[in-house]
Amino acid sequence: MSTAGQVITCKAAVAWEAKKPLSIEDVQVAPPQAGEVRIKITHTALCHTDSYTLDGHDPEGLFPCILGHEAAGIVESVGEGVTEVKAGDHVIPCYQAECRECKFCLSGKTNLCGKVRSASGVGVMLNDRKSRFSKDGKVIYHFMGTSTFSEYTVVHAVSVAKVNPEAPLSKICLLGCGIPTGLGAVWNTAKVEKGANVAIFGLGTVGLAVAEGAKAAGAARIIGVDIDPSKFDRAKDFGVTEFLNPKDHQKPTQEVIVELTDGGVDYSFDCTGNVHVMRTALECCHKGWGTSVIIGVAASGQEISTRPFQLVTGRVWKGTAFGGFKSRSQVPELVEKYMKKEIKVDEYITHNMKLADINEAFDLLHSGKCLRCVLHLSD
Amino acid sequence: MSTAGQVITCKAAVAWEAKKPLSIEDVQVAPPQAGEVRIKITHTALCHTDSYTLDGHDPEGLFPCILGHEAAGIVESVGEGVTEVKAGDHVIPCYQAECRECKFCLSGKTNLCGKVRSASGVGVMLNDRKSRFSKDGKVIYHFMGTSTFSEYTVVHAVSVAKVNPEAPLSKICLLGCGIPTGLGAVWNTAKVEKGANVAIFGLGTVGLAVAEGAKAAGAARIIGVDIDPSKFDRAKDFGVTEFLNPKDHQKPTQEVIVELTDGGVDYSFDCTGNVHVMRTALECCHKGWGTSVIIGVAASGQEISTRPFQLVTGRVWKGTAFGGFKSRSQVPELVEKYMKKEIKVDEYITHNMKLADINEAFDLLHSGKCLRCVLHLSD
Ligand SMILES: NC(=O)c1ccc[n+]([C@@H]2O[C@H](COP(=O)([O-])OP(=O)(O)OC[C@H]3O[C@@H](n4cnc5c(N)ncnc54)[C@H](O)[C@@H]3O)[C@@H](O)[C@H]2O)c1
Ligand SMILES: NC(=O)c1ccc[n+]([C@@H]2O[C@H](COP(=O)([O-])OP(=O)(O)OC[C@H]3O[C@@H](n4cnc5c(N)ncnc54)[C@H](O)[C@@H]3O)[C@@H](O)[C@H]2O)c1
Ligand SMILES: [Zn+2]
Ligand SMILES: [Zn+2]
Ligand SMILES: [Zn+2]
Ligand SMILES: [Zn+2]
Repeated sequence: MSTAGQVITCKAAVAWEAKKPLSIEDVQVAPPQAGEVRIKITHTALCHTDSYTLDGHDPEGLFPCILGHEAAGIVESVGEGVTEVKAGDHVIPCYQAECRECKFCLSGKTNLCGKVRSASGVGVMLNDRKSRFSKDGKVIYHFMGTSTFSEYTVVHAVSVAKVNPEAPLSKICLLGCGIPTGLGAVWNTAKVEKGANVAIFGLGTVGLAVAEGAKAAGAARIIGVDIDPSKFDRAKDFGVTEFLNPKDHQKPTQEVIVELTDGGVDYSFDCTGNVHVMRTALECCHKGWGTSVIIGVAASGQEISTRPFQLVTGRVWKGTAFGGFKSRSQVPELVEKYMKKEIKVDEYITHNMKLADINEAFDLLHSGKCLRCVLHLSD
Repeated sequence: MSTAGQVITCKAAVAWEAKKPLSIEDVQVAPPQAGEVRIKITHTALCHTDSYTLDGHDPEGLFPCILGHEAAGIVESVGEGVTEVKAGDHVIPCYQAECRECKFCLSGKTNLCGKVRSASGVGVMLNDRKSRFSKDGKVIYHFMGTSTFSEYTVVHAVSVAKVNPEAPLSKICLLGCGIPTGLGAVWNTAKVEKGANVAIFGLGTVGLAVAEGAKAAGAARIIGVDIDPSKFDRAKDFGVTEFLNPKDHQKPTQEVIVELTDGGVDYSFDCTGNVHVMRTALECCHKGWGTSVIIGVAASGQEISTRPFQLVTGRVWKGTAFGGFKSRSQVPELVEKYMKKEIKVDEYITHNMKLADINEAFDLLHSGKCLRCVLHLSD
C-alpha cells in the first residue's frame, strides 16, 4: 500500500535541545509539497557538523530538530512538479542544493546555491516556510535541508542527487559530505597539480580524503599533521607520505614544514576546525604561490588572523564548502567513481550501528576512535 | 671623461636615522662590481614605502641609508659579466629582481625573485655583501636594492629594466612602483574580467591605478572608497564610477557595499595599508567567488583577521607585490603602453621638485595633497 500523500509516522532521533542526548521518537513526516521529495533513509553516517550543532556551538542552531546530513536512501514519493526523481530512485540528499537557475548556479564560479537557503537556513521548507516534521503536533525543525537521522525525511528536489541503483546505499551514504569535501578541496578548490607538495592538518575523514585526492592528483609529498599519532598508521593507506606531530617539535609547525620542504608547501589544507591551525596552514605555504584551503568549521565567534605580509608575498587563503562539488550533478559522478574503484569509500567506515545506538555513535565520534560510523535504518 | 671604474662623489639625500629629516650630502658611490650596474638617476618619485621606513615603521629598516625606489635614469657603467645593459641605456631600477634562474623565477607562478634578496634585504650588494655607498669612509646602506634618492646608485643587474630611450625619464620613473602595482593587481593578481564589479579602498596613486586597470579590463562598476572626499573628483578620470565615504554611513562599509551590489563585489582591493580596511575589503566581496587583494603595506606587527566562514563560503584572500609584474621583462612593456597612450602616467604627477626639496616633498606626501611628486636630479 502506497504511503504517498499520507503523513508517515516513523522513528527518528530527535534533538530536543542543545547539549542533550538525542531521543528516538515516533515522529510524523508530512507528505512532500511542490518541489519536494520524501526519502526513505536507509543509511546515515555521523559528521562533526552534526555534533557541532548538537553541542550548541552553532549560534544559528534551532531546536528541536532532526540532525543528520550524510546519508542515502530511496525516494518514497515526490511533490507536485518534481520530474527529476520518482518513487523508487536511489538518492543522496545534499545539504548544498543545485537549482541550476539562481545567480550562484549560473555563475559557473561556485557550487553554492541560493535557491532554498532562506528556508533551509532556518529549518523549514521553501514552499510554505514550515517544517514537515512534527511530534504529536509539536513542530520539529529541519537541519541543513537534509535531516537524515530519521527513517523518512523531506528535502527540496534541488537538493536530491539521483545515483546508480547498483551502488550499495550502506557505503555511498558517505558521499553526502566528508569524502567529497576532502577530494573536492584538492581537485576543485586548490587544483593541486602533479609533483606538488601538500600539507594536511587533521587526519580524520576529511583529511584522509584530502590525502586520497592529492595522491590521485599526483602530489609528490603529502605531509600529514595530527596531534594524535594513532592516526598515522591508517593515513599511509590514503596516500600520506610523511607524518608530523606538532607535539614532537619545539619550533612552530610552520617553521618545521618550511624547513622540511625548502620554503614551504605548494598547498595546505586545514581539516581540524581550529583557527590556530588554520594560521599555521597558511604560513607553512611557499612564498610566491602557496595556497591554503580552510575546510574545518571553527567554533562560532572564532577568527583567523595573520600578518598581511603573508598574502602580499604571494600566499593565497581560500576555503571550501562540500569541496566545491555541484551536488546534483557531481555526487552521481562520485558514485560512479566508487563503482569503478577509482575512489575509496568502504575504507572510511570504521563502525556500523543501528539508529537506536546513535548516542553511542556520537560518543565514538568524540573519542577520536571513529572515522565514520554508518547507522543502518532499515536493514 | 668617463667615470667608469672610479668612485663617484655626488649628491644624495641620506637618512641618517629614523624619524629625522633627510640630509643632502656629498656621498661616495663605488664602481659596480660583477653583476652590478651603476646608474645616473635623473628622476625619482617618493612612495609611501620610503616614508614608512623613514618613519621607523619597518622593523628591518637599516640606517644610515639612502631611500628611494621609484625612479628612472641612464646607465653610467656596468660591472664584470653584465651584458644586458651598457653605459647610456635608459633604465628603471626595480626593487623586485628578475634573475630568470631561481626557483621563484622558474616557477611561472610569481614575480618574486630569490636571487639577491639575502643581500638587498640587509642593505648590501650580493657580490661582497658590502654597500657601495659611503660618506667619508662611513658606510651608508642600500634600500630595497634601489636607493634612488641619489644622483648615482649601484644596483644588481637582475634588477635593471632597460626601457625605450624615447620615453621621458621624468614621467616613466613612476613605472618603478605605484602604477604597475595597481594595474598589475587587477590584471595579474585578481584577473578582473569584463562586467565585474570592483571596490577600491584608498584612492591614492595605487588605488587610482587599480581603477585604471579595472576600467581597461571592462569592469562594470568601480566603487571608490576613501575617507578623504577630496579624492573623489580626480578619481573619476581614472575610471571610478561611484564613491563611498565610510564616514557618511552608520552601517559598516561591507554592509553598505553588499547592499549596493546585490551581494557584494566580485573583486576588492585594499590600497590603504590599514588592517581594518583589509577586513572590510574581504567581507564586501560576493559569497561564492569574491576575491580581495591586499596591496597596502600595514604597520609592522599589525594583523588581519576575519571569521573563517568568510573563506569557507567562497571568498578568496590574496595579496600582491609590484602587481605581479616580472620587473625586467614587463616594465619595458609598460613603458611601451605609456608611449602608445594605453596607460596614464603624467596624470599621477601632481608635483615636480628638486632633490634639495625632498623633505618638503615628504611633507606633501603626508598631507594627502600629493599623488606623486617627481624629484628632478639632473634637469
Ligand atoms: N567545509 C566543509 O564543507 C566541511 C564538510 C565536512 C566537514 N567539515 C569540517 O572538517 C573538519 C574535519 O572533519 P572530520 O570529520 O575529518 O573530523 P575529525 O574530528 O575526524 O578529524 C579531525 C582531526 O584533526 C586532528 N586535530 C585536532 N586538533 C589538531 C591540531 N591542533 N593539530 C593537528 N591536528 C589536530 C584530530 O586528532 C583528528 O584526527 C571538521 O571541522 C568538520 O566540521 C567541513
Ligand atoms: N604591495 C605593493 O607592492 C605596494 C607597492 C606600492 C605601494 N604599496 C602600498 O599601497 C598603499 C597605497 O599607496 P599610495 O601611494 O596610493 O598611498 P596614498 O597615501 O596616496 O593613498 C592612500 C589613500 O587611502 C585613503 N585612506 C586612508 N585610510 C582610509 C580608510 N580607513 N578608508 C578608506 N580610505 C582610506 C587615504 O585618504 C588615501 O587617499 C600604501 O600602503 C603603500 O605602502 C604597496
Ligand atoms: Zn558533514
Ligand atoms: Zn542555485
Ligand atoms: Zn613604492
Ligand atoms: Zn629569480
